[in-house]
Amino acid sequence: MKLTILGCYSATPRTFNNPTSQVLEMKGQLFLIDCGEGTQVELRRHKIKFARIKHIFISHLHGDHFFGLPGLISTFRLLGRDSELNIYGPKGIKEVISLMMKLSGSWTDFPLVFHELNSKESELILDNEKVEVRTIPLDHRVYTNGFLFREKPGERKLNIAEAIELGIDKAYYRNIKKGKDVELESGEVIPNARLSFDPPAPKSYAFCSDTAYKPDIVPLISGVDVLYHESTFMEAHAHLSSSTKHSTAKEAAAIARDAKAGTLILGHYSTRYGELDGFKDEASGIFENVLLADDGKEFEF
Amino acid sequence: MKLTILGCYSATPRTFNNPTSQVLEMKGQLFLIDCGEGTQVELRRHKIKFARIKHIFISHLHGDHFFGLPGLISTFRLLGRDSELNIYGPKGIKEVISLMMKLSGSWTDFPLVFHELNSKESELILDNEKVEVRTIPLDHRVYTNGFLFREKPGERKLNIAEAIELGIDKAYYRNIKKGKDVELESGEVIPNARLSFDPPAPKSYAFCSDTAYKPDIVPLISGVDVLYHESTFMEAHAHLSSSTKHSTAKEAAAIARDAKAGTLILGHYSTRYGELDGFKDEASGIFENVLLADDGKEFEF
Repeated sequence: MKLTILGCYSATPRTFNNPTSQVLEMKGQLFLIDCGEGTQVELRRHKIKFARIKHIFISHLHGDHFFGLPGLISTFRLLGRDSELNIYGPKGIKEVISLMMKLSGSWTDFPLVFHELNSKESELILDNEKVEVRTIPLDHRVYTNGFLFREKPGERKLNIAEAIELGIDKAYYRNIKKGKDVELESGEVIPNARLSFDPPAPKSYAFCSDTAYKPDIVPLISGVDVLYHESTFMEAHAHLSSSTKHSTAKEAAAIARDAKAGTLILGHYSTRYGELDGFKDEASGIFENVLLADDGKEFEF
Repeated sequence: MKLTILGCYSATPRTFNNPTSQVLEMKGQLFLIDCGEGTQVELRRHKIKFARIKHIFISHLHGDHFFGLPGLISTFRLLGRDSELNIYGPKGIKEVISLMMKLSGSWTDFPLVFHELNSKESELILDNEKVEVRTIPLDHRVYTNGFLFREKPGERKLNIAEAIELGIDKAYYRNIKKGKDVELESGEVIPNARLSFDPPAPKSYAFCSDTAYKPDIVPLISGVDVLYHESTFMEAHAHLSSSTKHSTAKEAAAIARDAKAGTLILGHYSTRYGELDGFKDEASGIFENVLLADDGKEFEF
């Protein structure tokens, strides 16, 4: 699982700070999460192949989270894309993107599938062979969702030495990986546990931005391996945090602690702060394993 | 008159090429012309004060000419702007910008005035004390206008030495600058020509992008001091030029020659070309005074 931060600052793009966008690679699939202005340039900078992006998740319709989307779709079109693109985001996203395409006379040749969200309950919105994605209803000034990405358990790993030792025909290997026992010609049944090892534990990633402190998301993300939670403010500006429906670093840490997350990544910093160490200091008092997102950073888990 | 090229490449923003946007400073007023994705970052890079931009001109609604506009308006709002912003662009621009503001719950506190264009004839769209702006109807795949900016003649310059020599009271100076004669107490009339010099000749700038070769714009821009004309292609791709309704460098030069322009600036290059010298070479065979736009370049006239 690999997370690439294309941008993680709040509000508006600046010379050295990009608005929110990140790419999650999970089981070989790429998921683009939010798409602030300038995202397509950051994708190029990171040499991420545009054609590999088949699913884009938009948390909410504030500009710093989606103003790069019309340009990215337009670029996909200009590059001659033909594969389907799925866009998951709040109701209204289809209307605004469609209007922009209409005005510019630029309908896509590839299938553009909108999955508009308006439920206040968590929903399963993507479910394929390897990954499932659920919404995490958040509390912001406009309708907002976080997203929980979960790997599905992989196949069991063949204990090749034991299989050879027992003279098991290769034709059985697929079934062994699927967890089945093997019956030998002699009638003896070899239990699967002797022929295979547990697969790597499936990983999970939760993206929660933008949101006020919302403890009722804890059960939804319980035990998540990696939690990205916005921390727009430090304690000094906690009053702004509540009035703007954002979180402080401490609040993000409390969510991570209560959800028993493996790792907390902080982001969506207000650009009023010159440096980021204070965010980590404040969060670390509450939750141990804190990392700081920054534009261009890559995390592997 | 100063022209700052924020971006001058066609199609999509890339790591080192920005889509179209430029700032014209004329008689102390700033005019933003087109606003491709990333424009607000380029404005910051050039340290152009956002509050000085009161008029934005959008040639047409292809993404590489206006996808930066929603973000720029949103940033104006976040910065607490209160002065009026005028946006001149094709019909439809108001609907799409308004929809984006509605979806993000981000109505501006400052007056946002849309001047929607749909005429196929040249129109006077801005007329203030110092500058007037007219549309230049162009020929592209969607409804498109260029823009002709003209300084108004300034006040005459006072011949201060002569005024003192003749003992003229300072109270008359304003009228002298306005071209009036002065009657002395003796009854003698001093003609204005003796008391003042001609003001600097008013300057003009024409922005013509995107467009196919359209010789009927020549009378509209006749004698323009500086013509920015798109040259998406060189001769090797002239066939693409006509099918996409763009111009070649030679066609841009022919317009400059026929309009008796002072200077031609080429831009809106296709990113297929590694270097730009070929554009200048091809245009120079037809029109002598050719300059090449490039991202970040500033021209003073």
